[in-house]
Amino acid sequence: MIIANTIKEVRLQIKAWMKEGKSIGFVPTMGFLHEGHQSLIERAKKENDKVVVSVFVNPTQFGPTEDLESYPRDFEKDTMLCEMTGADLIFHPDAKEMYEKGASTLIHVEGLTNALCGKSRPTHFGGVCLVVSKLFHIVSPDRAYFGEKDAQQLAVIKRMVKDLNFDIEIVGCPIIREVDGLAKSSRNAYLNTQERAAATILNKALTKGKETILAGETNVVKVKNEITEIICKEPLAKIDYVEIVDFDTIAPVKSIKGNILVAVAVFIGKTRLIDNFIIQA
Amino acid sequence: MIIANTIKEVRLQIKAWMKEGKSIGFVPTMGFLHEGHQSLIERAKKENDKVVVSVFVNPTQFGPTEDLESYPRDFEKDTMLCEMTGADLIFHPDAKEMYEKGASTLIHVEGLTNALCGKSRPTHFGGVCLVVSKLFHIVSPDRAYFGEKDAQQLAVIKRMVKDLNFDIEIVGCPIIREVDGLAKSSRNAYLNTQERAAATILNKALTKGKETILAGETNVVKVKNEITEIICKEPLAKIDYVEIVDFDTIAPVKSIKGNILVAVAVFIGKTRLIDNFIIQA
Repeated sequence: MIIANTIKEVRLQIKAWMKEGKSIGFVPTMGFLHEGHQSLIERAKKENDKVVVSVFVNPTQFGPTEDLESYPRDFEKDTMLCEMTGADLIFHPDAKEMYEKGASTLIHVEGLTNALCGKSRPTHFGGVCLVVSKLFHIVSPDRAYFGEKDAQQLAVIKRMVKDLNFDIEIVGCPIIREVDGLAKSSRNAYLNTQERAAATILNKALTKGKETILAGETNVVKVKNEITEIICKEPLAKIDYVEIVDFDTIAPVKSIKGNILVAVAVFIGKTRLIDNFIIQA
Repeated sequence: MIIANTIKEVRLQIKAWMKEGKSIGFVPTMGFLHEGHQSLIERAKKENDKVVVSVFVNPTQFGPTEDLESYPRDFEKDTMLCEMTGADLIFHPDAKEMYEKGASTLIHVEGLTNALCGKSRPTHFGGVCLVVSKLFHIVSPDRAYFGEKDAQQLAVIKRMVKDLNFDIEIVGCPIIREVDGLAKSSRNAYLNTQERAAATILNKALTKGKETILAGETNVVKVKNEITEIICKEPLAKIDYVEIVDFDTIAPVKSIKGNILVAVAVFIGKTRLIDNFIIQA
């Protein structure tokens, strides 16, 4: 497995692979990899000749009061996981390699970024779109893999790829969970024992909401209230949002019908966690 | 020469050429081609195995009160010029092929788009960056050719390509002029005989400004005033701007030193014309 720190190294290797007719699968990450990322790499491995993983804690997607500095990092462990899972190249640039002085270009996906996490984190998706565009141009993948845990991110990236005619297939992959149902996340590392126990409330509430929808409920308010009430029973939890939207447009829906995203963001202590399910209703 | 109306057709042809190891030169245009465009195609032909020309009057780069409807079109003549100049493929999509319903992605290059034409046409460069990004993803060129006549556009595209890590070389090509010095432009077609004669004032004024700089003048105000005074003597001319900026950043300069762009925009009757020179001072 190759470890590349510069754009130039990545491009040289990719071009060599392209010349051999190899297809390229790409998994962009912020590192501190867990079984969620691993499932993306495995899927990429299955569907492509070569797999590139990027490990880059992207400063432009963090707000000024957010956890850029403290975001967990363990490149040695990441390398082992990538190697073990069969990745062919890790791209591990520093911020200087990725962002030149004088950089002035912004990408904005209208509408889809107004609600949910975009409301709480107004500069977040601009930063995501920027870094993903850059990485796409550096890695030139045939397919790129994103977790459904960041469902709004997945919807935004799909929209951007369509709008800008990137010739890349975007593959969404299911959420991977701990045994007790907590969605795998690098930010789970922030939780102390008490908080870790409390964090299961997100999945518990969502599971109940899903059952209610599967039983035929189409009333948005009723399902949102049910999920909200369950989370509120957990004293360590503070709701950022509980929302039910159209998964493609992230627009509010009047009733639960179509391709629906039910998403929550909840602070457990100081740690903001997100979880969701997507349902064809 | 191939004429392709759909993105799919272009991609198939480009992929076939790539497989054969052919390099691709790209000339994006709004059609109504003249000797300026021809010089870009010739340059592209010299430096690449295959040359793609796009002919698309891009609605997103026109403001609501601008000349989208009346912009001159003559695809038959364009086809002949491309064929004659040795282009290999014309991409000639309609607006529906380029802009899907629900498209939501915007690209903004900060700073460089505030002054000059960006000031008079606030949504213009967003539209340019959007369509150029899309075309770059459709055509996948090795090199793309832009005229220096649209000098701010060239600076903005270069910045965007750097910031988003497009793996494309941007080649700026010199302004092509009529015998009397008027810069070739599709919009010259709007001018009546009187206006056509008056339009030579742009180049006359710029030529005088250039002489003054070459003689050693570094005072921005003095050179701007000299150019302004010459243009003001022409009764049919109404100045939009006369500016002297850094060519890379389009930022105002305190004195004429470095890589300098001297640019003017002038209404001749109802027709807005631009012209400029770039000088290493």
